[in-house]
Amino acid sequence: MLQNVDLSREVVKAEYKRLKGDLDLKLADLQRQVKTLGIPVIILFEGWSASGKGTLINQLILPLDPRGFSVYSASGPTEEEKFYPFLWRFWKRTPTRGRLAIFDRSWNRRVVTDRVEGQVKRKQLHQALEDIRSFERQLTDDGVVMVKFFLHISKKEQKQRFAALRENTATAWRVTEADLWQNKHYDEYLAAAEDMLTETDTEYAPWTVIEAHDRRFATLKTFTTVIDALNRGIAVAGRNVEEAAVPPGQPAPTISALKTTALDHVDLSRSLTAEEYAGRLKEAQTRLRELEHHIYRRRMPVVIAYEGWDAAGKGGNIRRLTQNLDPRGYEVIPITAPNDIEKAHHYLWRFWAQLPKAGHIAIFDRTWYGRVLVERVEGFCSEAQWRRAYREINAMEQQLVHFGTVLLKFWLHIDPDEQLRRFQERQEEVHKQWKITEEDWRNRAKLDQYREAVEEMLYRTSTPYAPWTIVESNCKWYARVKVLETVCEAIRERL
Amino acid sequence: MLQNVDLSREVVKAEYKRLKGDLDLKLADLQRQVKTLGIPVIILFEGWSASGKGTLINQLILPLDPRGFSVYSASGPTEEEKFYPFLWRFWKRTPTRGRLAIFDRSWNRRVVTDRVEGQVKRKQLHQALEDIRSFERQLTDDGVVMVKFFLHISKKEQKQRFAALRENTATAWRVTEADLWQNKHYDEYLAAAEDMLTETDTEYAPWTVIEAHDRRFATLKTFTTVIDALNRGIAVAGRNVEEAAVPPGQPAPTISALKTTALDHVDLSRSLTAEEYAGRLKEAQTRLRELEHHIYRRRMPVVIAYEGWDAAGKGGNIRRLTQNLDPRGYEVIPITAPNDIEKAHHYLWRFWAQLPKAGHIAIFDRTWYGRVLVERVEGFCSEAQWRRAYREINAMEQQLVHFGTVLLKFWLHIDPDEQLRRFQERQEEVHKQWKITEEDWRNRAKLDQYREAVEEMLYRTSTPYAPWTIVESNCKWYARVKVLETVCEAIRERL
Repeated sequence: MLQNVDLSREVVKAEYKRLKGDLDLKLADLQRQVKTLGIPVIILFEGWSASGKGTLINQLILPLDPRGFSVYSASGPTEEEKFYPFLWRFWKRTPTRGRLAIFDRSWNRRVVTDRVEGQVKRKQLHQALEDIRSFERQLTDDGVVMVKFFLHISKKEQKQRFAALRENTATAWRVTEADLWQNKHYDEYLAAAEDMLTETDTEYAPWTVIEAHDRRFATLKTFTTVIDALNRGIAVAGRNVEEAAVPPGQPAPTISALKTTALDHVDLSRSLTAEEYAGRLKEAQTRLRELEHHIYRRRMPVVIAYEGWDAAGKGGNIRRLTQNLDPRGYEVIPITAPNDIEKAHHYLWRFWAQLPKAGHIAIFDRTWYGRVLVERVEGFCSEAQWRRAYREINAMEQQLVHFGTVLLKFWLHIDPDEQLRRFQERQEEVHKQWKITEEDWRNRAKLDQYREAVEEMLYRTSTPYAPWTIVESNCKWYARVKVLETVCEAIRERL
Repeated sequence: MLQNVDLSREVVKAEYKRLKGDLDLKLADLQRQVKTLGIPVIILFEGWSASGKGTLINQLILPLDPRGFSVYSASGPTEEEKFYPFLWRFWKRTPTRGRLAIFDRSWNRRVVTDRVEGQVKRKQLHQALEDIRSFERQLTDDGVVMVKFFLHISKKEQKQRFAALRENTATAWRVTEADLWQNKHYDEYLAAAEDMLTETDTEYAPWTVIEAHDRRFATLKTFTTVIDALNRGIAVAGRNVEEAAVPPGQPAPTISALKTTALDHVDLSRSLTAEEYAGRLKEAQTRLRELEHHIYRRRMPVVIAYEGWDAAGKGGNIRRLTQNLDPRGYEVIPITAPNDIEKAHHYLWRFWAQLPKAGHIAIFDRTWYGRVLVERVEGFCSEAQWRRAYREINAMEQQLVHFGTVLLKFWLHIDPDEQLRRFQERQEEVHKQWKITEEDWRNRAKLDQYREAVEEMLYRTSTPYAPWTIVESNCKWYARVKVLETVCEAIRERL
């Protein structure tokens, strides 16, 4: 989930000032509703040292009624606390109904800091992750609204912040040996944090990663996330508590400054000349043909998943991928709307049924991600269904990878202008008209909703075992070569 | 879950004949409703070789419309199936909406047979169990009704059945080398099956153990369990599908022959003479006092949980347990109805808060099991709440045991006559009158409901890491000595 995070995001001061007052009022109002309805709320902050957790918590509590919340700081367990199971001190601090408990670091420490420092062994890690999921499920089953933040900064930014703190005699003491150790071992922490986020991101207690280089941005994103979560919790509780007259929740305002995301920073100007294309395409195709034999002999299953915008060039890309392959070794599986038999099963059923046999390559032209893209946007499934689908999909992909499958997921990305150009070209050229339908135009009209769905998909399903590769596809030649070379490299690494 | 199973249960032929016809009709009727409502149903049979899975499945399908179900036999995976992840062949066979899929052995094979035969390594086991839970959760979230049976027979019974099959030349071929191997390694299989049952018994896909020595008993219990499960599934689906006019489900008949359970066979005549009592009590108390020092020095936490019928003698038992102990090393925690603060938290919160520090003993006079006993019977929590509590409680106890806690759970058992005698004695003796209240009499009036709750509790929460000890308590002396000696033995084993 940290893979595609764009840390350069920021909010200008004027914009921040304009919005903050309204968010404060909304939050204060929601706290009162939470109290009336007796909803317990947990808000927790994890993240790097010097990422600004303390400052952010301060911002968050300022508009709140101080009689309604508690802040707990969970640094390492005390000598006393070590005499109990690790969740004990957190169970004790779960909030009573109607109150907020805000944690500065939490039980997740056990699977990040304690793990990196070697206090939690590999075999305990699996169990600790399960204990955490069980804990969070029990609380949310009991009505707790849980909001989980991870404050993310780069290694360089952290180093600079430590340096700045140490320069000032008044703040130098705040930088500990452990902090410096963390900066030195940044990559290990990053990997542990990524595992933690993947394994504990659930529909009942989802993570929100906060890009924390810019304090204003971090504050606004935190506030709107809390407001959205409380609104959802109030809506659920409101359905159950009939006697409480619950006014409809006021949604968090849509803040354009927060909308910028990872996809915006994809460099779509990347391209190849005709000569480069011809040379690299041929080379990669030849290599893949050779690898196909190794795959077969080693009985390695390969799954290649294509998703992308309409007209991003999936078809042509797949043709170049398979052009030189032995047809007995691969299959292209086009995915369209489910037929009646498929609709009568779990949505993952048809994908399980079409998995490649070990030693073979399956290329999916559109995939199981339809659940969180078209089905979400078009309302073909309920909100509860697509929200839990992230975890279901991650579980399936983890099972494939554990079995030894090489799994590659490509998002073919073009910008809206390029898409329009291609749509128009298709309509004008007689032999391409079959490629463009009314549906393409309808989807295009919902570009913002699709974009939000794509962003959330990339964020929640980029796992350490199955990351997404974003393919810059304004230049089709570049896109084809990138996919081919990525596939070759991934297979080579595993042989 | 196999610990307290009474394999001697049986149904006489006349009773069987009287009941079976009605069950057939009910089942056929429910199949039609399931089809109308589009509910997919999975019924799976696990259990010992020669436990009668085939016969039982035949019984089950006879009353069904053959166009509405499929039977799958899952022996070891074929060569073909080995080229896919282990759940692949089962995903493919999940039923379409409105159909039944009946599995003779299933995906659970992976965590029992494959494990015992060494094909699944220890580190893969944890993952396989998680994959199974995830698979079952995904299907039931999608509306599948899942009924899981484990057919249990003893080692001796299995051996006899194999011998009988081999004596007859027509059936001798049915006993394979693998079958004989299983009988020889019965205890290993038993332990693996017990782990499997514990780890995959969930509120969405609970296990039913079938005592399979008597075919008639096994058949009736299987039928009534399926009927109950289908009725529950229809009730849930009926709430969601308004247009379908669903007649109220006909509950499975209460069959007195099926009611017999493990508690009935507790030998309540066990007793001690005054002399035996005095000697063994003193000896055990002295030993425990010594062990208390070791516990402290080794920083071992000990949790002793007391549950039992009203007037079973918990108070007197606890006094004998603690009589000789150093009061700085233990605490007795009486549990009554939760106060307002406790009610404003998750029901497990107050127990977490009162866990013993490492090196100390906590004795709970009544426990977290109130959720599945008094709260269930008196309607203080919803059915969904107590059904998921088994798993929540098992998770908590597993966390304690992983932390190194010695955890003992005692059910103090007396029969209704003895209880009545003690109630009357309390009312007659002035100094004991405080011990008997109106509530005791009210509870006694609900004896059948309490008994059902106790039985299900013993069955679903007797785990390999935290088994129940049933204490025969008609003779208080016997009960006191049994608890003391059990505690000493459990601590000694862990030092």
